[in-house]
Amino acid sequence: MEKVVVALGGNALQDTGSQATAEAQLEVVKKTTKYLADIIEEGYNLTIAHGNGPQVGRIVIQNEVADNVTPAMPFDVCGAMSQGMIGYHMQQALGDELRSRGIDKPVSTIVTQVVVDKDDKAFQNPTKPIGPFYTKEESDRIAAEKGYVMVEDSGRGYRRVVASPKPKRIVELETVKTLINNNNVVITVGGGGIPVVEENGRLKGAAAVIDKDLASQRLAEDIDADILVILTAVPRVAINFGKPNQKELDKVTTEEMKKYAEEGHFAPGSMLPKVLAAIEFAESKPGRKAVIASLDKAREALKGESGTIIEA
Amino acid sequence: MEKVVVALGGNALQDTGSQATAEAQLEVVKKTTKYLADIIEEGYNLTIAHGNGPQVGRIVIQNEVADNVTPAMPFDVCGAMSQGMIGYHMQQALGDELRSRGIDKPVSTIVTQVVVDKDDKAFQNPTKPIGPFYTKEESDRIAAEKGYVMVEDSGRGYRRVVASPKPKRIVELETVKTLINNNNVVITVGGGGIPVVEENGRLKGAAAVIDKDLASQRLAEDIDADILVILTAVPRVAINFGKPNQKELDKVTTEEMKKYAEEGHFAPGSMLPKVLAAIEFAESKPGRKAVIASLDKAREALKGESGTIIEA
Repeated sequence: MEKVVVALGGNALQDTGSQATAEAQLEVVKKTTKYLADIIEEGYNLTIAHGNGPQVGRIVIQNEVADNVTPAMPFDVCGAMSQGMIGYHMQQALGDELRSRGIDKPVSTIVTQVVVDKDDKAFQNPTKPIGPFYTKEESDRIAAEKGYVMVEDSGRGYRRVVASPKPKRIVELETVKTLINNNNVVITVGGGGIPVVEENGRLKGAAAVIDKDLASQRLAEDIDADILVILTAVPRVAINFGKPNQKELDKVTTEEMKKYAEEGHFAPGSMLPKVLAAIEFAESKPGRKAVIASLDKAREALKGESGTIIEA
Repeated sequence: MEKVVVALGGNALQDTGSQATAEAQLEVVKKTTKYLADIIEEGYNLTIAHGNGPQVGRIVIQNEVADNVTPAMPFDVCGAMSQGMIGYHMQQALGDELRSRGIDKPVSTIVTQVVVDKDDKAFQNPTKPIGPFYTKEESDRIAAEKGYVMVEDSGRGYRRVVASPKPKRIVELETVKTLINNNNVVITVGGGGIPVVEENGRLKGAAAVIDKDLASQRLAEDIDADILVILTAVPRVAINFGKPNQKELDKVTTEEMKKYAEEGHFAPGSMLPKVLAAIEFAESKPGRKAVIASLDKAREALKGESGTIIEA
């Protein structure tokens, strides 16, 4: 049974056009899980990774707004809360969907820590904005009080930025492997995982955001997956995107993909991290391949009928 | 290897005397996990259940206070968030502690749903207060707007109350069993589990609180545990509590315990649910025993040197 890791983006978990209520989120999650159930029904051994940007952003806002009533939790704890929230909705919806199709597979969410290097250069240059927008005055006060790095964000106000270090090691890997090898669909590395650093053999939460595509690649390699599927809003990766000579890619080698990346075809913070994670996975071991596809074409992409397939 | 379920109370997760910061919570959790590591070091196969009262209460407060900025999540989702938060701190601290002792056992938290009967009589009579206190005016407005049941709470203001139905089935049971049988220490049914009801074969979150001692008993029976340890603030269960003829119980039969319970020796909402869960577990299968003990004497209690041991 081929092992597949699917990395879900924010659009698979939340309808950006609607209100951020639990009901609206659950509706989107229910649609998403139908596509995931399709993959399982095809006979793949599926493991699910997902982002948490909008969700953890709202948890941070709730924590900050209520800070005068009850102490705001630090960012690592907010990440853990988002894993609980998103994982609950996904395992409920996917479990229901599988049961309705007569597929007997337990679905579970593992609260997942991911070790990052405390000397990762990213900590010197925090770039990832999180949580609410503040005025200049509020921002200065917060920077002084809490030591946060604050930056002006596209004219919309000031926000906290945190580092985006590379994932080194998934702490709960053995647990995830045990479940994968025992017929479970596992939801893990939510939001890229809760970032922790190692200090004298002990783990400590860090204020950081691990890129969920890189965490998914780490996961896929570590569980010895055959295919890494990175889902996005478009059906295929394109070069010359938005230009008259735009060209969608169906099957490319990692060498070609590297050349395109160097030529600047892919937007940083959007398609570029997906492409880089795909290249790294495809080159990590002979026979592995990465697929970048849209959620509604995930099943077809696994058959080679949609998406962009990247192989060494 | 004897299987033990430990049910941790709120005092094992939070110092009620100190501020409710993440740092303070983590300090208490670190102390708690040393006692849990002692049990593992004795050679028991440990599974951990825990309460979430103060923690989910604060999450509800954060959600309500920030409701004008971002929609408050319903109570089942707040419970899922609390499982993520508490589980993260516990698995981190216990993992560190086991590693420092040279014990190679993965620790993991499973986001856990527990099915309750939607016709459970408890839904007709909600009794469990959750979240913030309101004035009479606020309370009336909330009752009208959201349909919550609000009650006056001991002169401190008005609060929402939810039902406390009986746990029927642990949805993620197969996952928990797989991990227990594969050398994992599992943290599960946090806060008694996320309450869900079944409707046309699908699960749906419910606004309810499942008693964590009853959920622990359900868990202990379902994983075929040998011993259920319910931890509390006192070293032993006592009859005539607080009176001159107070007597601590060291070893009692379930028949004796039932008689004491009927005589009104145990406070409802405090010692009584622990005693009832202990009796039910001890009578569920020959050879099973329940222990009610304090956290710092848990290791001794398992050897019969402390705590109250209840056997059929």
